[in-house]
Amino acid sequence: MSTAKALKNNLLLKVLNGEHTERVPVWMMRQAGRYLPEYMVLKNKYSFFERVKNPELACEITLQPIDIIGTDAAIIFSDILVVPEAMGLEVQMVENKGPLLPSPIKSENDLKRITVPDVKDKLNYMAASLSLTKKELNNRVPLIGFAGAPFTILCYMVQGKGSKGFEEAKAFCYSQPDTAKKLLQMITDTTISYLEMQIESGADCVQVFDSWAGVLSADDFKIWALPYIKQISERVSAKAPVIVFAKGAWYGLEEMSKIKASALGVDWCIEPKFARQLAGNNITLQGNFDPSKLLSPIPEIRNEVKKMMAAFGKHHYIANLGHGILPHVPVSHAKAFVDAVKEFGVNS
Amino acid sequence: MSTAKALKNNLLLKVLNGEHTERVPVWMMRQAGRYLPEYMVLKNKYSFFERVKNPELACEITLQPIDIIGTDAAIIFSDILVVPEAMGLEVQMVENKGPLLPSPIKSENDLKRITVPDVKDKLNYMAASLSLTKKELNNRVPLIGFAGAPFTILCYMVQGKGSKGFEEAKAFCYSQPDTAKKLLQMITDTTISYLEMQIESGADCVQVFDSWAGVLSADDFKIWALPYIKQISERVSAKAPVIVFAKGAWYGLEEMSKIKASALGVDWCIEPKFARQLAGNNITLQGNFDPSKLLSPIPEIRNEVKKMMAAFGKHHYIANLGHGILPHVPVSHAKAFVDAVKEFGVNS
Repeated sequence: MSTAKALKNNLLLKVLNGEHTERVPVWMMRQAGRYLPEYMVLKNKYSFFERVKNPELACEITLQPIDIIGTDAAIIFSDILVVPEAMGLEVQMVENKGPLLPSPIKSENDLKRITVPDVKDKLNYMAASLSLTKKELNNRVPLIGFAGAPFTILCYMVQGKGSKGFEEAKAFCYSQPDTAKKLLQMITDTTISYLEMQIESGADCVQVFDSWAGVLSADDFKIWALPYIKQISERVSAKAPVIVFAKGAWYGLEEMSKIKASALGVDWCIEPKFARQLAGNNITLQGNFDPSKLLSPIPEIRNEVKKMMAAFGKHHYIANLGHGILPHVPVSHAKAFVDAVKEFGVNS
Repeated sequence: MSTAKALKNNLLLKVLNGEHTERVPVWMMRQAGRYLPEYMVLKNKYSFFERVKNPELACEITLQPIDIIGTDAAIIFSDILVVPEAMGLEVQMVENKGPLLPSPIKSENDLKRITVPDVKDKLNYMAASLSLTKKELNNRVPLIGFAGAPFTILCYMVQGKGSKGFEEAKAFCYSQPDTAKKLLQMITDTTISYLEMQIESGADCVQVFDSWAGVLSADDFKIWALPYIKQISERVSAKAPVIVFAKGAWYGLEEMSKIKASALGVDWCIEPKFARQLAGNNITLQGNFDPSKLLSPIPEIRNEVKKMMAAFGKHHYIANLGHGILPHVPVSHAKAFVDAVKEFGVNS
């Protein structure tokens, strides 16, 4: 991997490659986000899709946490819902209310309204964002690309908005299984091309977010989530390491350890030792700090980081949160988290 | 238990007492609710608190599913948020938006605004509802009382409204632990008196709902949820059987199996066999049908009920959903669920 060698800080890629490193790498989901005052300046000036679709803005936002917090990786600023939009479904981002898809998929007939697009046409702004960011990063740290997993994307495409349990989306799967599977395959095909394009444009590795997999039972996870994550992981891992994060789906860790992912994300609702037991010893784990704990006093944060690393061990492990960083976390607390990993994560 | 003997259908109480029964008992969380057209008539006519605080209305609503669906137990119509209201915090129920507590608890000083009330004064309408319902039930099936668990009630008292992850409430616990523990103890003391009053007024058993326990890590569950459920369960089980349902907190099943509860609820995100393994063989399990599956075609529902019962076994088991029934479930599907348990749950 020529990119990996050129990087000044290649801790993340080494760990994803199964190597032992001098210390545990650390980044934070949603590290380019609302907790940073520098991000808020741009958020208040430009709409969500302006920020995502303008490569200069996306690049600037992506670099902010590298400069300010000192994470060991950058993750491209974007959103998982660019995929349904590229497939032809209108996506609105309503400030402070979340996403809205005003014409969701409800039946077989609705599939006619969407396509598996040419990602180089419909998502060319992402290629431009990644190329520019890769250049501006100047090999300081690796660049992570990402996409939503098919089940999670289906949740939004069917439910039409955020939800606590995505019951309508699940009912769609259970009552129209053939249509649901067609939709999942369309999303999968789009996502594979999309992630491959991200890698060609400069992403050193990619993460697949199955943020809503945890609303499924273990049996349903095997039907509605796993087969599509598997296809993506097996295809895309030929080009770059893949991290799979199926939030809440602890019961799927064993199966997911067998699908050519380089790492599995875990949230804070599973104990590190049990996650390791389920996933086995041949895969890297990533996580699992409770994001709300970044609102604790700094000495508490340091303590909890220490405990987390004692539980995961310092090899085959990437320190991260168990979900995105919360908007009201003080910057000093985010930095304390990263600094604590850098201090306690050294391998002697 | 003299009440149990007078009951025409005492399957539920027998199972809670550890006895083998001729078939598996079945009820549904939120069985008195929006999926029933008969309930909607009353919902459209009276406000939420009118329905809860008027014993005649609460009784009528509680009996509806017994007459229409044929469940093996009635659960008193009410809401877990009557407790914060009785403690002195304003609770509004905004139709189609959920609860709103306009002056939530944010600091130690805010505890001065609440008390551990005399439940016979502040919640006397619940005593009246239960007495009337017990009488009107005429011993057809047992009557279940209920309350929210202290951590879940704290979530609403601090966050002030519903949330996907109750991050503010958790941050309150992590950053003001002494205040949080005082609040949890006040809720616990209120809840014990409240459940004891429910039993004195006619409840044959009670369920404690820790609906948001699953937002905690396993370690935090032991700090913020378990000790308070334990106090309640140990005190109240002296008077009647206690069912504890900590949604999402599968990692707490082993500890919860040791706190004098007669049964533990489980949601659909844990496999029945693993739940049994964690909880051991000396406790009844209740659950765990995915509520969204009630939107599947009826033959599918029957299939899934069969699978569920094969996995749980027919002893020490109460068939139920893994969470409340959804508003848009057809009545015929709810009835098909109950009928399938009655058909496949017979012990030969």
